[in-house]
Amino acid sequence: MRSGFAEVIYCSGKADQHLIHIFGRIYREEGEVLGTRASEMQYQILKEHFPETVYDPVSRIIKIERDGKRRVGSIAVCTAGTADIPVAEEAAQTAEFFGSHVERVYDVGVSGLHRLLSRLEVIQSANCVVAVAGMEGALASVLGGMVDKPVIAVPTSVGYGANLHGISALLTMINSCANGIAVVNIDNGYGAGYLATQINRMGVKAHE
Amino acid sequence: MRSGFAEVIYCSGKADQHLIHIFGRIYREEGEVLGTRASEMQYQILKEHFPETVYDPVSRIIKIERDGKRRVGSIAVCTAGTADIPVAEEAAQTAEFFGSHVERVYDVGVSGLHRLLSRLEVIQSANCVVAVAGMEGALASVLGGMVDKPVIAVPTSVGYGANLHGISALLTMINSCANGIAVVNIDNGYGAGYLATQINRMGVKAHE
Amino acid sequence: MRSGFAEVIYCSGKADQHLIHIFGRIYREEGEVLGTRASEMQYQILKEHFPETVYDPVSRIIKIERDGKRRVGSIAVCTAGTADIPVAEEAAQTAEFFGSHVERVYDVGVSGLHRLLSRLEVIQSANCVVAVAGMEGALASVLGGMVDKPVIAVPTSVGYGANLHGISALLTMINSCANGIAVVNIDNGYGAGYLATQINRMGVKAHE
Amino acid sequence: MRSGFAEVIYCSGKADQHLIHIFGRIYREEGEVLGTRASEMQYQILKEHFPETVYDPVSRIIKIERDGKRRVGSIAVCTAGTADIPVAEEAAQTAEFFGSHVERVYDVGVSGLHRLLSRLEVIQSANCVVAVAGMEGALASVLGGMVDKPVIAVPTSVGYGANLHGISALLTMINSCANGIAVVNIDNGYGAGYLATQINRMGVKAHE
Amino acid sequence: MRSGFAEVIYCSGKADQHLIHIFGRIYREEGEVLGTRASEMQYQILKEHFPETVYDPVSRIIKIERDGKRRVGSIAVCTAGTADIPVAEEAAQTAEFFGSHVERVYDVGVSGLHRLLSRLEVIQSANCVVAVAGMEGALASVLGGMVDKPVIAVPTSVGYGANLHGISALLTMINSCANGIAVVNIDNGYGAGYLATQINRMGVKAHE
Amino acid sequence: MRSGFAEVIYCSGKADQHLIHIFGRIYREEGEVLGTRASEMQYQILKEHFPETVYDPVSRIIKIERDGKRRVGSIAVCTAGTADIPVAEEAAQTAEFFGSHVERVYDVGVSGLHRLLSRLEVIQSANCVVAVAGMEGALASVLGGMVDKPVIAVPTSVGYGANLHGISALLTMINSCANGIAVVNIDNGYGAGYLATQINRMGVKAHE
Amino acid sequence: MRSGFAEVIYCSGKADQHLIHIFGRIYREEGEVLGTRASEMQYQILKEHFPETVYDPVSRIIKIERDGKRRVGSIAVCTAGTADIPVAEEAAQTAEFFGSHVERVYDVGVSGLHRLLSRLEVIQSANCVVAVAGMEGALASVLGGMVDKPVIAVPTSVGYGANLHGISALLTMINSCANGIAVVNIDNGYGAGYLATQINRMGVKAHE
Amino acid sequence: MRSGFAEVIYCSGKADQHLIHIFGRIYREEGEVLGTRASEMQYQILKEHFPETVYDPVSRIIKIERDGKRRVGSIAVCTAGTADIPVAEEAAQTAEFFGSHVERVYDVGVSGLHRLLSRLEVIQSANCVVAVAGMEGALASVLGGMVDKPVIAVPTSVGYGANLHGISALLTMINSCANGIAVVNIDNGYGAGYLATQINRMGVKAHE
Ligand SMILES: Nc1ncnc2c1ncn2[C@@H]1O[C@H](COP(=O)(O)O)[C@@H](O)[C@H]1O
Ligand SMILES: Nc1ncnc2c1ncn2[C@@H]1O[C@H](COP(=O)(O)O)[C@@H](O)[C@H]1O
Ligand SMILES: Nc1ncnc2c1ncn2[C@@H]1O[C@H](COP(=O)(O)O)[C@@H](O)[C@H]1O
Ligand SMILES: Nc1ncnc2c1ncn2[C@@H]1O[C@H](COP(=O)(O)O)[C@@H](O)[C@H]1O
Ligand SMILES: [Mg+2]
Ligand SMILES: [Mg+2]
Ligand SMILES: [Mg+2]
Ligand SMILES: [Mg+2]
Ligand SMILES: [Mg+2]
Ligand SMILES: [Mg+2]
Ligand SMILES: [Mg+2]
Ligand SMILES: [Mg+2]
Repeated sequence: MRSGFAEVIYCSGKADQHLIHIFGRIYREEGEVLGTRASEMQYQILKEHFPETVYDPVSRIIKIERDGKRRVGSIAVCTAGTADIPVAEEAAQTAEFFGSHVERVYDVGVSGLHRLLSRLEVIQSANCVVAVAGMEGALASVLGGMVDKPVIAVPTSVGYGANLHGISALLTMINSCANGIAVVNIDNGYGAGYLATQINRMGVKAHE
Repeated sequence: MRSGFAEVIYCSGKADQHLIHIFGRIYREEGEVLGTRASEMQYQILKEHFPETVYDPVSRIIKIERDGKRRVGSIAVCTAGTADIPVAEEAAQTAEFFGSHVERVYDVGVSGLHRLLSRLEVIQSANCVVAVAGMEGALASVLGGMVDKPVIAVPTSVGYGANLHGISALLTMINSCANGIAVVNIDNGYGAGYLATQINRMGVKAHE
Repeated sequence: MRSGFAEVIYCSGKADQHLIHIFGRIYREEGEVLGTRASEMQYQILKEHFPETVYDPVSRIIKIERDGKRRVGSIAVCTAGTADIPVAEEAAQTAEFFGSHVERVYDVGVSGLHRLLSRLEVIQSANCVVAVAGMEGALASVLGGMVDKPVIAVPTSVGYGANLHGISALLTMINSCANGIAVVNIDNGYGAGYLATQINRMGVKAHE
Repeated sequence: MRSGFAEVIYCSGKADQHLIHIFGRIYREEGEVLGTRASEMQYQILKEHFPETVYDPVSRIIKIERDGKRRVGSIAVCTAGTADIPVAEEAAQTAEFFGSHVERVYDVGVSGLHRLLSRLEVIQSANCVVAVAGMEGALASVLGGMVDKPVIAVPTSVGYGANLHGISALLTMINSCANGIAVVNIDNGYGAGYLATQINRMGVKAHE
Repeated sequence: MRSGFAEVIYCSGKADQHLIHIFGRIYREEGEVLGTRASEMQYQILKEHFPETVYDPVSRIIKIERDGKRRVGSIAVCTAGTADIPVAEEAAQTAEFFGSHVERVYDVGVSGLHRLLSRLEVIQSANCVVAVAGMEGALASVLGGMVDKPVIAVPTSVGYGANLHGISALLTMINSCANGIAVVNIDNGYGAGYLATQINRMGVKAHE
Repeated sequence: MRSGFAEVIYCSGKADQHLIHIFGRIYREEGEVLGTRASEMQYQILKEHFPETVYDPVSRIIKIERDGKRRVGSIAVCTAGTADIPVAEEAAQTAEFFGSHVERVYDVGVSGLHRLLSRLEVIQSANCVVAVAGMEGALASVLGGMVDKPVIAVPTSVGYGANLHGISALLTMINSCANGIAVVNIDNGYGAGYLATQINRMGVKAHE
Repeated sequence: MRSGFAEVIYCSGKADQHLIHIFGRIYREEGEVLGTRASEMQYQILKEHFPETVYDPVSRIIKIERDGKRRVGSIAVCTAGTADIPVAEEAAQTAEFFGSHVERVYDVGVSGLHRLLSRLEVIQSANCVVAVAGMEGALASVLGGMVDKPVIAVPTSVGYGANLHGISALLTMINSCANGIAVVNIDNGYGAGYLATQINRMGVKAHE
Repeated sequence: MRSGFAEVIYCSGKADQHLIHIFGRIYREEGEVLGTRASEMQYQILKEHFPETVYDPVSRIIKIERDGKRRVGSIAVCTAGTADIPVAEEAAQTAEFFGSHVERVYDVGVSGLHRLLSRLEVIQSANCVVAVAGMEGALASVLGGMVDKPVIAVPTSVGYGANLHGISALLTMINSCANGIAVVNIDNGYGAGYLATQINRMGVKAHE
């Protein structure tokens, strides 16, 4: 496959028969298959047809993954709070499925900066950093100032009131005054994991 | 005067005769007078009538201030960048006019966190912190996590594009996940300086 | 603890096991514990583990509070309508948990100004005023004009139509032409109670 | 004329020849003529053709008015600040041109409620109240709570930052929890003066 | 009572005990009582305490009304579509409760102008017109151009997509180029009925 | 040329040399050339190089048009007010340049419906109607209800305050409850003229 | 019937009795009837009264259609993804009901352009193209650049986060730099099918 | 220097003395210096002090660059239209200053897809693609679907009306359904050039 990435299924809203059909087709073609935004119910249905299906209710990722896959390089996936973890896990598990090694650095939001500083080394040694944050989304800027690798910022819909369902965090990240930051859609862990893998692969080759 | 604060003139858009009239009236009544958002032109006009008038083109504050005023307590006025300084100076000089001692901690934005950390002591020893920032406005959250005194956040219109003339920074600050933060209008240095003084005065009495 | 405030749990969306774990840890460390935005269901679960847990369905605050706590100083928590009371109670009970004495001045919105005027004395004698209002949120401005202490404005999502889920009230409060007002997030009673306590403590020391 | 109101010219952006033409036509037909949003320059041009033309640079109203017009009933036009006066004058002079008696109650914004209370009698005895306010626009709600006559709220673009060029004041007024309020466009003094006159005329007949 | 209007209850979100209490109090004081935005469930509860309670599921108005009330003058309540009728009925029944005679002119939206034109006489002979419309809300402008009495425009949340839950209709109405229009909140039939009654009462007196 | 439409130049912001170059190239290739949004200054410069250049300051269209072009079929270009004419002329002259016959029906806004009704025949006999309106933009809905041919709605930035520079009119038009309406960008007369010509050409063939 | 289109019922939110009544009336008058946005439940109810009723749960279209209707001309209905199909089917089935032949070209979004290019011939030979897309909505621009027939763009609410429930796709389409595009409301398949039929009918006549 | 990137000056709004000071300091420290958003005037002033200063009025980049710098790897900078070139040049020249080889692929917007397809090879062979587009911003999605390297999307403020000064293009890009895209601020060519260089450097090392 040209892009080096198998097709991924966005499960949310897919009709059952349609989902079973695509899931099966990709599994046959690729020997493995990944779906995002899957419900518990969709898991039950797919499991009936493909008993080796695995589901993670936190990330809502569903998959059948080839054994013995090597995970290379390093992507640091960071979150501001614990409520951002579902989105972070979508990013992390997507990246892992595509063969990236992932370091999870969770709950290091800027209101308790010491926690972030204590994990700095692992962050700075990654090929790419994913910054997942809702509410005011300031984590991306702080990370951007601390690392010299690309930072992919993922605003989340975590928060309430003037968080505008994630638009506030998105705006924060888009306006970041730090260098080397770019932003994906609100709650789009998948997109961040994909892009981070593209970058990580370059980093891996660079270190070979 | 009940509130302990003299009336302040918002000069922007005031007709010349009207401005001269209020400026003179307050000067007579209070023995001193403060105006904000004054233009160079308004300064020339007021100076003709009141030669002791002083004007600062950065903060756009115009005033006649009583001699030998003691400045007590401590307010830390912090900015993310140098472009935020005009708003910070409006806050600082307003607070000083009302008798507060002000520590200026400028250009300590989150993309270069070490500069902020190196000034931490002076910030933490203030009775109140004013956080002035445009673009993504993350400074307020970082300060909120570092100090146990009230933080007054002032979003500025500094930036471009998706900064939405300051709305993005305002949203960042309103959504801050740090404790002890409240927000005033975009570019409202005056409002922050006033409120900071109210709090500083309590701090001063508390230490007496 | 440096800040003088114990950690508070934002219960909404927390997984049960995670909630029990944090609740227990803080209780052990502090001898008391406070949670906000708790559901009836979360109360049932926590009560099983910690029978002394107390829950208020109005404010949705859950807590175990040390006996014989003294509440000092004074914070006036005011609401425009009765529908704003849940947010006001979150503010009031947070402040009380942190040791502040609270005066409740509810249903004094600007469309019936006489009710507000009749309670003016208690409001003016507080160290800090919390103004809770939805719909058009005008209460904050009126209070700001009447008191010489800091006013913390809390917009609420109360209302319908063009209230924009609280954004309208937030804008009203941010644009207030009265002096000494700052704003927290929509429905953020907790944030207001925390900040009000910081200020009230200064006021208490000042009067000692 | 069916509606009892002569055609009014919105001068802003009209080409000179076009303006002269309409101005002349209405003058001939009605014996008098009113234009809004006229510039100084347009005044100079119209004056050349119609020397009896009168211009008020504050309201930007240009007109030739019949002599000896009786002004009946009463409309109270109130403003929050002095910067709202141009819009208020557009309302007041429109209403006067259409034969209404107008009471001006300026600079009675809610941050200094006593000034408003001191003028209450004149406001309450009007057939209709026009509430002109920018920034947070709270004046309309306060007036709505105090009078039992229709209140026409005019948001103005006065303010800065999060005033959103008048949208914030508009939202405040639309969300007002007081009874008997309706809102016209930002800075639309003309529209308010017109509608107030419709109501005032009914009040006048009612008192006959 | 000074305003000539009894207190009205906004039932939505009121706790049962609280609702019964206010409903009872006003009933005792006034001999009748009106509530808006009541649910079927609230009706069941109030009916138990006050068997003479009447409920209309379309307008969601709940009331006990004095017998033999005379309805005077005339208010024309118009809607663009049938989906706007619940809001229109809230307006109409509020006005009727306060003693106004109401003409209902429903489903006369601008996409079928002939239906509107066929009802023109009854509309033009009213003292006040209420224009209720969702989607693009053009009805208010068309009515404004056809009648010389005040038009109160009520945007509704009817529609989908870019109707923005009624904001689009509100903006249409606020920007109307017709004379004699003012706007209340989205779906605020009550507010329109109240204001229309204030105006209708003046018209009634004028015709006496 | 496949599409049957020559390339059109959007002149605004083009550098002089660049403009001269494209203008010349298209003129040579097509024997005629059309530019939109041209300034007076750009006209002077092009005229020097191509003396047969013609400029209309109202529509800001610049062109060299082949002689003896036949204009076929019929497009009705309607405006709500006189201030919408520049946008309407951009549409009309674009359509004429592409060989359409255009009927101009100006100043027929919904606040004076009789003017519109008096021109109905010419509108209904067109193959396509272009509805140009600012402020509340209700004209498109009214036209949509009256004709059975496609209506292309062009919101304009005409108005002030809550017109949001044309966004309000755009929303009105997008939400139209009439059948057979679609919308182009604010002030995009060119786009409407182009699309109307595509439709008109089909109508012309249909009548052959 | 003047317009050549029978009345269509927007079923969403209609009361059962009201729906049965209109459905029956149109059926009697026209010999066939079409409803959009119908629920499964409404289908059950209508089927009881009119057993020949047919329901499609994807498009949510309900109808009784005359036998042997000829479908003429050609409309290409294209979608970006599979999730846009419900809206596309509303458009397609509306157009078919009104006698148009429809070509379905689904799942040809711009992120896999080859799929679109492989179907180009069928798209280019249509009289009118309907472009249905959510998320970023770029399909309309790409189609607009490829065909010389009118493109009706239908933004859908498909997507999440910053899709703003379809507003983002709407803005993309309104700003399209391609020629010959106009836009209808979010998810408004019906409106697109209606307008496409108006155009297709002209095309059919043109080819006769 | 840790990050491998010298400090860059954002010239817009900097006071002259301040600009000269920083420009000089960086020049001394690094032997070269780069400034963005510089005005013609600022160029004149800097040239007086540093005669070797070079200015490009299109990109508004000002610099003194070391001789004989090698530019390695490949970044493809693409624009939709010619009006996007200033932003693209800011990106390209920033990347070049930091040592990247840049391929310019301008005016390949989606309304003329063949131009884009004809340049595909050079785009696909780059280590990173920068997609610069205003109006509807669809270019990023199309590029994202065609390349398997990271795409950095830069929305521009090019366009008018509903382009919302670039917000529409930003939303398009953030919602892109193509894989491997992330977005920077409106008109932020600098940010894209910086991030593209970070990625390009990894690609260069990977190919060594
Ligand atoms: N969580 C996600 N968010 C955004 N895009 C996704 C997500 N998961 C999968 N995708 C993308 O959606 C495409 C599949 O969309 P679909 O054809 O609707 O299944 C995949 O190729 C991915 O590019
Ligand atoms: N820069 C400022 N921003 C907001 N409010 C201000 C500012 N300067 C002064 N004010 C307030 O505006 C009031 C005076 O307004 P005015 O009557 O228009 O001069 C003062 O009493 C202050 O409360
Ligand atoms: N300041 C104003 N704001 C809004 N509408 C106005 C204003 N002045 C005049 N008008 C209205 O604009 C109409 C004239 O518009 P025009 O035909 O453009 O001159 C008048 O009949 C008034 O209804
Ligand atoms: N007034 C206008 N508004 C929108 N698009 C236009 C306008 N005038 C010309 N265009 C389009 O812009 C294209 C040329 O853009 P450009 O390459 O920037 O000159 C033409 O082919 C037209 O499709
Ligand atoms: Mg960095
Ligand atoms: Mg703190
Ligand atoms: Mg105060
Ligand atoms: Mg009232
Ligand atoms: Mg009227
Ligand atoms: Mg039609
Ligand atoms: Mg085309
Ligand atoms: Mg890609």
